[in-house]
Amino acid sequence: MENERLSKILVDRDLAALGDAFVNLVYSLALTRQTGRPKGSKVGNKVLAEAVRRVGLRELLPKRLDRHVIGDSAEALLAYAWLEKLISVDECAEALMRGLDQPVEAFARLLALVAERVKTGLRAEG
Amino acid sequence: MENERLSKILVDRDLAALGDAFVNLVYSLALTRQTGRPKGSKVGNKVLAEAVRRVGLRELLPKRLDRHVIGDSAEALLAYAWLEKLISVDECAEALMRGLDQPVEAFARLLALVAERVKTGLRAEG
Repeated sequence: MENERLSKILVDRDLAALGDAFVNLVYSLALTRQTGRPKGSKVGNKVLAEAVRRVGLRELLPKRLDRHVIGDSAEALLAYAWLEKLISVDECAEALMRGLDQPVEAFARLLALVAERVKTGLRAEG
Repeated sequence: MENERLSKILVDRDLAALGDAFVNLVYSLALTRQTGRPKGSKVGNKVLAEAVRRVGLRELLPKRLDRHVIGDSAEALLAYAWLEKLISVDECAEALMRGLDQPVEAFARLLALVAERVKTGLRAEG
């Protein structure tokens, strides 16, 4: 049941649109903190799609999706968690900072953390 | 003296790069709260450049700049204030929400608020 609701979040295109802005900011903040200089950077869809697969969220999505839609699901999940106050901008940046040389792993760890919190939140709601 | 330091912030290209991501997120969050549905949107350079002029910050920039660079100065200022914890994502979204139908005015108000806090911060530092 949680998985059903999580699946709905993952394919929400409006959440993905907000999540695109969210992901770019937390990634840029992580780079800024790591380098000690302000940085602005975008996260490629390939990185996000691979992180989604790595963390097992791909199985909650419909079959036969292109990479773009799979990457969007990461953005949707992060935006949902942020709007629901399950995670903050700071926390995401901190989580990403450890391991920015391997962004797929960094995002996979962040997604695993966030998916767990979202599931726990959904469980608590009944 | 404050103005000199403020001028340096306004033309910092690294700050502007981070600020681009910041501005898109706070604007998207403001739209999300106003409409009650998640939204992702980018802020046009024209809007930001016009807001910079409206609030008198244009005078702190070099002469003969194109609109793009003027718009960047708004992003740089907002990123600086955010990194220095003079303003939060939430606060920016709240400030923008009142008047999203007139985005130039909304950003001008936000820039005036932030410029004042940055100046006060710079004064406090001596």
